[in-house]
Amino acid sequence: MTCTKGVFVPASSRVPALQNIATRLRIDSVRCTSEAGSGHPTTCCSAAELVAALFFSEMRYDPRHPENPDNDRFVLSKGHGAPLLYSAWAEVGIISRDDLLTLRRFDSDLEGHPTPRLPWVDVATGSLGQGLCAGVGIALNARRIASEYRTYVLLGDGETAEGSVWEAANVASSFALDSLCAIIDVNGLGQSRATQLDHDIDAYVARWRAASWHVVAIDGHDLTQVLSALDEARAAKGRPTMIVAKTIKGKGISFVEGKQGWHGKALKKGKELDTAIAELESQIVNEPEPIVRPAPRVVSRAPARRGTLPPPAYALGDSVATREAFGTAIARLGAVDDRVVALDGDVGNSTFSEKFEHQFPDRFYECFIAEQVMVGTAMGLAARGAIPFPSTFAAFLSRAADFIRMAAISNLNIKMAGSHAGVSIGEDGPSQMALEDLAMMRAQPNIAVLYPCDAVSTDRLVEAMASHPGPAYMRTSRPKTPVIYGPEETFPIGGLKVLRHSPSDQATVIGAGITVVEALRAHDELAAKNVHIRVIDLYSVQPVDAAALLRSARDTNGRVITVEDHYAAGGIGDAVAAAIAAGGFTVQRLAVREIPRSGTPEQLIDHYGLSSRHIVAAVLGV
Amino acid sequence: MTCTKGVFVPASSRVPALQNIATRLRIDSVRCTSEAGSGHPTTCCSAAELVAALFFSEMRYDPRHPENPDNDRFVLSKGHGAPLLYSAWAEVGIISRDDLLTLRRFDSDLEGHPTPRLPWVDVATGSLGQGLCAGVGIALNARRIASEYRTYVLLGDGETAEGSVWEAANVASSFALDSLCAIIDVNGLGQSRATQLDHDIDAYVARWRAASWHVVAIDGHDLTQVLSALDEARAAKGRPTMIVAKTIKGKGISFVEGKQGWHGKALKKGKELDTAIAELESQIVNEPEPIVRPAPRVVSRAPARRGTLPPPAYALGDSVATREAFGTAIARLGAVDDRVVALDGDVGNSTFSEKFEHQFPDRFYECFIAEQVMVGTAMGLAARGAIPFPSTFAAFLSRAADFIRMAAISNLNIKMAGSHAGVSIGEDGPSQMALEDLAMMRAQPNIAVLYPCDAVSTDRLVEAMASHPGPAYMRTSRPKTPVIYGPEETFPIGGLKVLRHSPSDQATVIGAGITVVEALRAHDELAAKNVHIRVIDLYSVQPVDAAALLRSARDTNGRVITVEDHYAAGGIGDAVAAAIAAGGFTVQRLAVREIPRSGTPEQLIDHYGLSSRHIVAAVLGV
Repeated sequence: MTCTKGVFVPASSRVPALQNIATRLRIDSVRCTSEAGSGHPTTCCSAAELVAALFFSEMRYDPRHPENPDNDRFVLSKGHGAPLLYSAWAEVGIISRDDLLTLRRFDSDLEGHPTPRLPWVDVATGSLGQGLCAGVGIALNARRIASEYRTYVLLGDGETAEGSVWEAANVASSFALDSLCAIIDVNGLGQSRATQLDHDIDAYVARWRAASWHVVAIDGHDLTQVLSALDEARAAKGRPTMIVAKTIKGKGISFVEGKQGWHGKALKKGKELDTAIAELESQIVNEPEPIVRPAPRVVSRAPARRGTLPPPAYALGDSVATREAFGTAIARLGAVDDRVVALDGDVGNSTFSEKFEHQFPDRFYECFIAEQVMVGTAMGLAARGAIPFPSTFAAFLSRAADFIRMAAISNLNIKMAGSHAGVSIGEDGPSQMALEDLAMMRAQPNIAVLYPCDAVSTDRLVEAMASHPGPAYMRTSRPKTPVIYGPEETFPIGGLKVLRHSPSDQATVIGAGITVVEALRAHDELAAKNVHIRVIDLYSVQPVDAAALLRSARDTNGRVITVEDHYAAGGIGDAVAAAIAAGGFTVQRLAVREIPRSGTPEQLIDHYGLSSRHIVAAVLGV
Repeated sequence: MTCTKGVFVPASSRVPALQNIATRLRIDSVRCTSEAGSGHPTTCCSAAELVAALFFSEMRYDPRHPENPDNDRFVLSKGHGAPLLYSAWAEVGIISRDDLLTLRRFDSDLEGHPTPRLPWVDVATGSLGQGLCAGVGIALNARRIASEYRTYVLLGDGETAEGSVWEAANVASSFALDSLCAIIDVNGLGQSRATQLDHDIDAYVARWRAASWHVVAIDGHDLTQVLSALDEARAAKGRPTMIVAKTIKGKGISFVEGKQGWHGKALKKGKELDTAIAELESQIVNEPEPIVRPAPRVVSRAPARRGTLPPPAYALGDSVATREAFGTAIARLGAVDDRVVALDGDVGNSTFSEKFEHQFPDRFYECFIAEQVMVGTAMGLAARGAIPFPSTFAAFLSRAADFIRMAAISNLNIKMAGSHAGVSIGEDGPSQMALEDLAMMRAQPNIAVLYPCDAVSTDRLVEAMASHPGPAYMRTSRPKTPVIYGPEETFPIGGLKVLRHSPSDQATVIGAGITVVEALRAHDELAAKNVHIRVIDLYSVQPVDAAALLRSARDTNGRVITVEDHYAAGGIGDAVAAAIAAGGFTVQRLAVREIPRSGTPEQLIDHYGLSSRHIVAAVLGV
């Protein structure tokens, strides 16, 4: 606690000191955005008392040790208020006021919106409506590790139009997360106009009450009210608390207060800035007693249990859907690693995450049909040391695409799984078929993308993705597929398996998931005609083993055919093409090229050109 | 009205007839799912009275003319209840009961979940939580065309966990959409367990009241209550109505009623099915007076005004951001085509859709920071004949990825635009940079993807995308770029522009958007060294002009370099690679290959390898 000084004072008498802190936060926010020439100073000004109260009276944390698992947590969901957060850190003393002036510069980690490049940031924010979802995960993590830390989330009012906020609202109350306290900074102004609800505090209160939260409405510039609301939140049991704080955008600077047209606009250096700073400085009251922040909690606990898995109990030729093998694998993993948790979107009996739930109900989080909060909660859990496996139908992970984007920006350790990929699901039709999930996941340069074809590789890849640092995705299939690997086989991320090869191979056929068995069938049909092909299982779609692919392309006279239960763009064909382009090799792609329809899996796999007969035809060039 | 018979009877005395219809809908739903061997009969049974009342008493529509713009509209948001919808059509008489037995077959349009392959379906459903968003758009369309049609949306209870439902809730009340009536079928059971709120009707009522809807709670199996609630909805002015209907999943079949484990499970043919059918048949009461559905409205109206645009007023060398040219173009287009509407996510002053708003406030829909309902509303508008341009930052369109997926499945005529693409936005940092939007859009095989580099091409492509049938996406940039095309230049979708060429070109450099100017700079730098390159503006990223790309690759000895302000996977490099693979040509890709950070646009464009000096180096092979 080297960064604070003086003696502890009761809450009520802290108000003048906190008011001065709030004013300094305004001054610093305004100054650094003007120095940067861009940013959102007015949104910082509206929340200055809220942040001052949180950081200098309410929260218990050790700023020198952001990794302390028992620190209270703060998520700035309104990420464009980043300068306010950075200014609070400067006030705490962990960065300097000179650092603040590097805001938004290429050589500074004080980015335009907060990212976990900074050790005090759990999740990147700036895509609005995500912070509360992460906050749910962070608060659940306290329960997981039996910590008493509390989680605070500061939202803008505009972002509560995002549905994800209401997913979080409902999930947080269903989890009875009383360690979670959120605050909405209701300054009434969005970017382009007044917000949907303007300053209608009653409407906010009604909506959050209806979502079963404890709700307190306050004047967000009255520190006595702010402190009292935080007291009330701490006392509220069995439900999360929402503090609805009525504020004024640009508060403290009379010529911008409550005015349209000042969102995302720095004050011009010179007269405009100087006038604002002078006005703010005039608001500093006589320096009161310095305050001491409450001490952080110190809890000793045993390290999490982490073991390795024995090989799975599948036998060659067993018929097991990879989605089921996934469920079995996470349950197996949960038994040897306490950090593993699972999240579901009410499809646990289809993705088989129910196997985990049955064994570890305390580490299973049912998010119902709300994929954004499922992924967002996983992001929060991952940020605090859990290894979360959120899973649903792969098609519905696209509901969380923006969360996945932000998870990649944060490089969070989340392990997503999507089942029911591709036309091979059959009769349910296109709405349930993921045919663009590989494109979505591969687009992010740091997401590992895995696509096993059998139960053994699924099992081993679940373990591999749990050990892999950073975000990862596993695609699983609905139909049963034969076990083709022995239990001792290893599957490093970034590898592939050559399943068939001969010195006289005329083409390389690369499949993954359900197309591997089609490729093997094609191999046998062709072999009967004395045409030999190399068959590759590209279980690691990102990264790919470029060297092995290049080698195989060379060995087979540059003839490379990919076959995937995915649309033509962004999937396996593109991954292989990019990898072997360096050798001057191109790819012939078998993929789904139109919006599919209902039918049996076999009909669809054949109709959309993925079956063995299409592979045979491609190899033979007919 | 050939499909109805008998005489009109007052609502109260219709109950026995409607009850029989509900029973027949149950019988048909159960029978056709058993025939298909899969499907969701129990979710059909819970909503049978609701659908019977809507289709045979409440809604005014001509089933023989689904294109009638004044028909009342129905959206089955709980798309897995498709058999119930199809059974209603059979009861109406527009398909046969034999047709019903083709459910889920490859040769039938009666797919597992409804799609607009069927003329009575406006939008594909089956990804839960989307129907109410589409319903908002359909209801807004009634206002647009001055029709009195009403819009009905049937939701499942489980899907109200989706945030998109709450986006729709808030937007619908802000639009005072009293022609919109939604019904939640609260059967209390999700797929894997009881829903989040189980049968807590009070909780539903509180949440929808808080969202400022008129709310009626009823027993969803009591037709008198259903009819009365629909009367009440019709009478409610100034706000949409939500009917919260308490129901029992599997209602009517005693051995499945209210039981877990029956979601998505057809009854087995034989004893199980026969027992169910016998029980349902026993519920048929003495055949009452046949009923006549209310007559459809007949409204005559002038056809929408549709003109063509004169060339834009830009001059070569002007410096205009494509995002601003987009705003100008939609406003220009709005003046000549009444069908054009615009939707915003509270960034209209950044995307410049505010230019449209200022001219056509009645055709501008502010959805606030809620991208799912923005795209969903556009889907509903498009389904009913409008040409909607929803726009926001391209990064935040990913929030609506699942809606975009379903819009593609529906092949809807929506025209999306995403601004602030790529690292060239600069200081705001990665959360605001779309670097995967091309991958997301290109993955869908039927979305046209356009990426103009200057104001003229933006303008002409806005007009082209409005004329193009089906979904389209335009990517625009934040920085100003020089006008390089004359106002008479044409830009067909699927085309490209060769900007520089000579007989001695050593490589083809393909850019789009902000990289075109970098490619032109590289051209000039190289020309000074007597190295000549071909420069292509790939303004149409999907479809691409494969023939022209192949020609250029051949002309430049197979050396093709792409440069894009996008991640390496799924964008321009992959599009070109797939197009020229047939000629045996490969692509060298310059693209963003890591999570970027804040900085000036120039710093970032250079640091991530997109600037002219990187192009020069790539051409020279250094």
